[in-house]
Amino acid sequence: MTESVDFLQINLLGTNESKLRFDKLKAAMANASIDCALICTNTNIYYLTGRVFRGYIFVSTDREEPVYFVRRPSTLRSTSGEKVVHIRKPEEIASALGAINAPIALELDSISYSEACRLAAATGMTAPAGNVSAALRAARAVKTPVELAKLRLSGERQSLVYEHIPHLYREGMTDIEFQIEIERASRLGGCLGQFRVAGREMELFMGNVITGENADTPSPYDFTMGGEGLDPSNPIGANGTIIKPGMPVMVDVNGNYTGYMTDMTRIYYCDNLADEAFKANELSAAICAELASMMLPGAKAADLYARALQMATDAGMADYFMGHRCHAGFVGHGIGIEVNEGPVLAPRSHDIIQKDNVIAVEPKFVIPHLGAVGIENTYIVGANGGQAITTARTEPVELD
Amino acid sequence: MTESVDFLQINLLGTNESKLRFDKLKAAMANASIDCALICTNTNIYYLTGRVFRGYIFVSTDREEPVYFVRRPSTLRSTSGEKVVHIRKPEEIASALGAINAPIALELDSISYSEACRLAAATGMTAPAGNVSAALRAARAVKTPVELAKLRLSGERQSLVYEHIPHLYREGMTDIEFQIEIERASRLGGCLGQFRVAGREMELFMGNVITGENADTPSPYDFTMGGEGLDPSNPIGANGTIIKPGMPVMVDVNGNYTGYMTDMTRIYYCDNLADEAFKANELSAAICAELASMMLPGAKAADLYARALQMATDAGMADYFMGHRCHAGFVGHGIGIEVNEGPVLAPRSHDIIQKDNVIAVEPKFVIPHLGAVGIENTYIVGANGGQAITTARTEPVELD
Repeated sequence: MTESVDFLQINLLGTNESKLRFDKLKAAMANASIDCALICTNTNIYYLTGRVFRGYIFVSTDREEPVYFVRRPSTLRSTSGEKVVHIRKPEEIASALGAINAPIALELDSISYSEACRLAAATGMTAPAGNVSAALRAARAVKTPVELAKLRLSGERQSLVYEHIPHLYREGMTDIEFQIEIERASRLGGCLGQFRVAGREMELFMGNVITGENADTPSPYDFTMGGEGLDPSNPIGANGTIIKPGMPVMVDVNGNYTGYMTDMTRIYYCDNLADEAFKANELSAAICAELASMMLPGAKAADLYARALQMATDAGMADYFMGHRCHAGFVGHGIGIEVNEGPVLAPRSHDIIQKDNVIAVEPKFVIPHLGAVGIENTYIVGANGGQAITTARTEPVELD
Repeated sequence: MTESVDFLQINLLGTNESKLRFDKLKAAMANASIDCALICTNTNIYYLTGRVFRGYIFVSTDREEPVYFVRRPSTLRSTSGEKVVHIRKPEEIASALGAINAPIALELDSISYSEACRLAAATGMTAPAGNVSAALRAARAVKTPVELAKLRLSGERQSLVYEHIPHLYREGMTDIEFQIEIERASRLGGCLGQFRVAGREMELFMGNVITGENADTPSPYDFTMGGEGLDPSNPIGANGTIIKPGMPVMVDVNGNYTGYMTDMTRIYYCDNLADEAFKANELSAAICAELASMMLPGAKAADLYARALQMATDAGMADYFMGHRCHAGFVGHGIGIEVNEGPVLAPRSHDIIQKDNVIAVEPKFVIPHLGAVGIENTYIVGANGGQAITTARTEPVELD
């Protein structure tokens, strides 16, 4: 039987963008005294090629070109001179590479202990000998122009969906019913669904809608807000609360429209939201604006956190800042392919703000017996500070 | 300020069910010569307590009771005499445990190399010294009555949603538009959204709707079916194909309604589906029925795979069995808290079928230039074979 078989190019980024990303990674590796690395997680393969495949990318600071080891799919091919080797198992890597006179670093913060040991053995080492995770994190924290364009597009699409949210409400809805309509609107607006989070203990579906006192239920996850969730198997977010007049409804849903995610939170309500909530939301927007103005290349991430806390304290809101019964330890975070990238705006962060960081800032307050209030925006760091790429209006919005 | 603080019980399972699960785990540990273990992944903490928390469970085959180390949330408490220790970091575990004269095994197939090394050091070991992953997998492969009840309920709810699927179609829809309506119907029907899959290279949002020739696009993921996906960042499933007369539409969406998942696939079409597709679907249903009858305690999982392949071969369909350009290496898999548990029905599987295994069987065919056809059911293994808990009608269903 004859048939057309499509071959797909191994690297979708184009020569210049591909070189830019590999060069950034190599610089970060050199900075960490890592000579070569074997990279295999979906997020980092996507970062380096613009696609996800199952396999390994060998990167060396000495060699000009990476080697792409592909397990699946078999349709991937070299189309611009890239070195592509199809393998069935990682034990075939060593012979294809030839003599490597340096330890091969692995993504030891992401791959399992068992896999790390197998890969080390497969590349001729007695044990894993170097960790390339931090170098990848450092490279990815500073976005390229192509990445920034994807982030801007995600922000635009997410903002359009958010403007539509008030029309999705119907009287008597529960938080989860409202969330389901927001999920559908997001998906129809192009949201890809997949929500990539780094770290094995983090799990999130399409983001969260948190209504009223549910906000004060602590969660096991290290997100800013908690919520009881619908089931103890997934204790986060909406818990079936009926949305009633006076309750703030915090909407923080998935902004992955391009493979790159933006993060945006807004408050909605039906009738009679307390002045206290409007004031706290205004304070949150003021903190966002202040932190955006402080997002200058060279600034210390920890200073941004300190300034946010100071503003909350000055307003008498310190007890409710970033939670009440349970407090999140940060006010902002880098974002891109994953929702939790560098830099981190936290008290003990050693991160320095750099141009083309993309940072979500989310100064939120949990006011007892009222609920969660505050906004979140995603910013691109430029020479003069942060520019918001999530642009829905920041005031609490009344539901139709 | 005085306030009511709710304390939540550390273990939701009740004394008998809790003891049953810990005893199963201890038996599997003893079988693997593991004396004690520290367990920390969300799935296994959920298995052992009925809830997810951030922390660690110390299990010893010598001691009667486990020790629960809790990092988050702070609201978890002992309510039935359990030993609960609140900690800020894993380095506090060793002093709380006292002298342990055995190596402490970890979930080395799931936790990162970095975390494994940190936990080993935190518990006084120079390096990770044992892997409890396989013992947990073995324990979880045989479900308890409480787990079976949750699986039956998921199957009932998922089957109700599937019966509703034909009504969600509107003429001119793309695959993803159809999928979005199925996602919404699933969520309104109680689907929790979260789709737990073991293995770092596996990613799936709400399952897949695969239409026409898109079925023959290989994917990097080790699911039975591929599909191009909407974006190279997530190359699986629906790709924007407009659903046209004659195209089989394979629906395989998330069955997590209770924390435990069922897996079900059915075929839909609008007008004029080729006889070839009906025949292949009938063959798939016949293979499911045959494998269900072979699911006897003591049977070899590999024999079930061989029988499925034989039936496909006898029907002249071997080239299309489990894919065409890319073939999946299995015809069924255990399922429960995660979608890919034991036993695995694959050619080189060493698994033996046991009573109270829960197994999804998915003999699917990718017919070139037509698409994917076949069904999937989830079965509970009893003394007389498998009983299906996914019960939607198995014939291809015409869309309204």
